[in-house]
Amino acid sequence: MEENLPPGFRFHPTDEELITHYLCRKVSDTGFTSKAVVDVDLNKCEPWDLPAKASMGEKEWYFFSLRDRKYPTGLRTNRATEAGYWKTTGKDKEIYRSGVLVGMKKTLVFYKGRAPKGEKSNWVMHEYRLENKQPFTPAKVYHIHKML
Amino acid sequence: MEENLPPGFRFHPTDEELITHYLCRKVSDTGFTSKAVVDVDLNKCEPWDLPAKASMGEKEWYFFSLRDRKYPTGLRTNRATEAGYWKTTGKDKEIYRSGVLVGMKKTLVFYKGRAPKGEKSNWVMHEYRLENKQPFTPAKVYHIHKML
Repeated sequence: MEENLPPGFRFHPTDEELITHYLCRKVSDTGFTSKAVVDVDLNKCEPWDLPAKASMGEKEWYFFSLRDRKYPTGLRTNRATEAGYWKTTGKDKEIYRSGVLVGMKKTLVFYKGRAPKGEKSNWVMHEYRLENKQPFTPAKVYHIHKML
Repeated sequence: MEENLPPGFRFHPTDEELITHYLCRKVSDTGFTSKAVVDVDLNKCEPWDLPAKASMGEKEWYFFSLRDRKYPTGLRTNRATEAGYWKTTGKDKEIYRSGVLVGMKKTLVFYKGRAPKGEKSNWVMHEYRLENKQPFTPAKVYHIHKML
């Protein structure tokens, strides 16, 4: 239906909508997709290739991606691609719905090359996860854009 | 159709879309309305009454309004309501489409009371007009929101 949106209408979800309407559905049904948020493997995609993978979006793109473990027994996650890596910036933000904590938002910046000598790029990623005690949830939502 | 938008979809037009898709149509057909942009008389509405006049919008609202002349023979416009007045802030912004100037955007803030002793409020209005040589165009688009 997105092709038929009247002029000026766009996918501009709030943090809470992304979690409750998209991530919760994905977690309960990994087959769930929508035109607004499509599946992608973030470890296999460079940020500049992501816009072409999306079904919609002009300057901002939304994806589902599974999280990879860097080491099978560890808690660290693999945020590297062939060309570089995503590095966390700032503190995670708590996302509330009606006063209840429903998820967390982490912001990352893409660096070209290999840590710790990577070169900072203007690609930004916001990663949304459900709030629960387990370190890994089966899916996450990602919001990608370039810094202004 | 807006009632049937999937979660996270909203009316978030660019300046250029507001002018080319909404204001141009209104100017060529004053009977034109849409759910996203409805007619209102800004001289008869206080800003806090505007959200209820709109068909949609949570924190931002869009309207068409005709401009009133303050004096029949003058160029000054009447931006007063019963409770206060809208005062221009900053410089007008030029809006381009593919390098062509299509319109202008003026930003105003609402003051309670009477000039010059009004009390500044947190209501903001962006006024879009077509770019032409005449001082008055038959319609304008207004984007209203509260300051964060």
